[in-house]
Amino acid sequence: MKPPYIRPLDIRHGRIDMGHGAGGKAAAQLIEELFLPALDNPFLRQGDDGAALPWPGGGAQLVMATDGHVVAPRFFPGGDLGSLAVHGTINDVAMMGAQPLYLSASFIIEEGFALAELQRLVQSMGQAARAAGVPVVTGDTKVVEQGKGDGLFISTTGVGALAPGVRISGDQARPGDVVLLSGSIGEHGVAVLSQRESLAFETTVTSDSAALHTLVAALLAAAPDAVRVLRDPTRGGLATTLNEIARQSGVGMRLQEAAIPVQPQVDAACELLGLDPLYVANEGKLVAIVAPQAADAALAALRAHPLGREACCIGQVCHDPHGFVQMDTRFGGRRVVDWLSGEQLPRIC
Amino acid sequence: MKPPYIRPLDIRHGRIDMGHGAGGKAAAQLIEELFLPALDNPFLRQGDDGAALPWPGGGAQLVMATDGHVVAPRFFPGGDLGSLAVHGTINDVAMMGAQPLYLSASFIIEEGFALAELQRLVQSMGQAARAAGVPVVTGDTKVVEQGKGDGLFISTTGVGALAPGVRISGDQARPGDVVLLSGSIGEHGVAVLSQRESLAFETTVTSDSAALHTLVAALLAAAPDAVRVLRDPTRGGLATTLNEIARQSGVGMRLQEAAIPVQPQVDAACELLGLDPLYVANEGKLVAIVAPQAADAALAALRAHPLGREACCIGQVCHDPHGFVQMDTRFGGRRVVDWLSGEQLPRIC
Repeated sequence: MKPPYIRPLDIRHGRIDMGHGAGGKAAAQLIEELFLPALDNPFLRQGDDGAALPWPGGGAQLVMATDGHVVAPRFFPGGDLGSLAVHGTINDVAMMGAQPLYLSASFIIEEGFALAELQRLVQSMGQAARAAGVPVVTGDTKVVEQGKGDGLFISTTGVGALAPGVRISGDQARPGDVVLLSGSIGEHGVAVLSQRESLAFETTVTSDSAALHTLVAALLAAAPDAVRVLRDPTRGGLATTLNEIARQSGVGMRLQEAAIPVQPQVDAACELLGLDPLYVANEGKLVAIVAPQAADAALAALRAHPLGREACCIGQVCHDPHGFVQMDTRFGGRRVVDWLSGEQLPRIC
Repeated sequence: MKPPYIRPLDIRHGRIDMGHGAGGKAAAQLIEELFLPALDNPFLRQGDDGAALPWPGGGAQLVMATDGHVVAPRFFPGGDLGSLAVHGTINDVAMMGAQPLYLSASFIIEEGFALAELQRLVQSMGQAARAAGVPVVTGDTKVVEQGKGDGLFISTTGVGALAPGVRISGDQARPGDVVLLSGSIGEHGVAVLSQRESLAFETTVTSDSAALHTLVAALLAAAPDAVRVLRDPTRGGLATTLNEIARQSGVGMRLQEAAIPVQPQVDAACELLGLDPLYVANEGKLVAIVAPQAADAALAALRAHPLGREACCIGQVCHDPHGFVQMDTRFGGRRVVDWLSGEQLPRIC
């Protein structure tokens, strides 16, 4: 499939803008045209949020995933930078179908940062890690001068074990597969935005930030060999995640708007902010693309788990050489759900 | 052994200063009094630069190490931020006695950063990774607003495989062991400082930045079961590294100043800057603490490797309940070589 970019990156004169970090089309292009050629290897080229790797002696595969966390503000309803740094990376490991085992953490701290806030965030990390059963086993701390950072950035890396032969990847979706979503969308993005000084608005929305590895384990146990793709729709939201998968697999998708759960308060906040919930980040939801014969069992397994109670089928994978994600709207029409292009919500995770 | 801190951290009112990132006593105290209690687990408490972890199914242990890289400036004689981010983390994995296998990289980029410089640094990473045979298999990119970062920070995490039962750790040094050093000290720190706008001075010193895993493999092959501790003396330099080991193992050390190789240009630059080379960072040297009966074989193996040609024995481990590192000076005296206290060289790696 042809890349969806209008023109190549202007590496000679170009500069990074906020859109390159928003998880949409600009970010994908930066990865494809700058990072992949420079770091070239087949694991990275796979294009998933983590890598499944051979481990000496055979047996389990090693899964490795990393994420930088720069969310602003650092505290928001339902979570904070510390818990998010744990959940985000555990989820990237889990979306490869692996059992997350260990985390590492790199802290880049701005001079002048209050020790009390640092302690609160690191304690929150510790609580999230203990609750998930995935300890932070090694770390590093660097300090940069005042004005050269923004309080605290945390990069976490997770490793996990994946059963031999299992391959759950964005390129495995096939026409006829069903698209499952584990719950309502947009809460994380709205919760963070509600705390921005420039925007502060009243809402009762809390972030859905959560570790999804036990939900994944339940799903895989209920539908072994039938789960083709797992992904958590973070930056760029559900729309961008589905477009990524469609592109990796060389397929189209057909969604039903009416089937996609959105909390009324999220709808209201998005209306106020001029946002489409389809593009708003989640931190505790997953998309599962599953073989049709296992759809009922998979959905039942998701719904039986506390983090998947509102799971639903939101559409199907179809043949489409152009890789379009289309949606039947609530009003009986149909529209293309495109990639997020450029910046929508900077520093949401 | 009692902690070497005069008073506990004032978490309620205290703030991060540059010293907390310099790898000396302030950094150690921050880890001990803030990070360890919050993230509490036995792997982290081990206090090494990486963690050796059980892996399902037995067989090889998993080693995991992480490092944030914030060096300023990003280019220096002998290396750059990209190659340093690869070498630094490979070395942390290798110092556990493991074979490094895979790297992940998290990029935190400041808005406005030139794509051409980003490409140059990522290409340098790729070259260093290919040269070392340790690919960057997964990554993440975040963008922060102009003024909220400093160009580019790279956090890398490395994983490696460690033979079952092997335990090389800072707490394994025993009285009578010999202290080996793989070459001359202080080049990395001096090379980086020579490029600082505020300092810029003329020197021919180049950074020693290098991946040390093949040197470690050669050493372990020559002296199996005799290598107790391996560590690369980065931030805080040789003096701080030896103090850390002395403290972890509950032993003292006795060094011979005349045996510690320092290039004349490094000596001259340190004199100019008022620095002691013992506290200046290295990125391509290792300290090996080895059982006495294997010292000759170990030294010969180091010297036979291109990165260890100037390896030498610089002292011995001795009984000392206070954990002092002492040094016989060139002038026939003796002095205590203390921890780096506070900030000496910020953002050196």
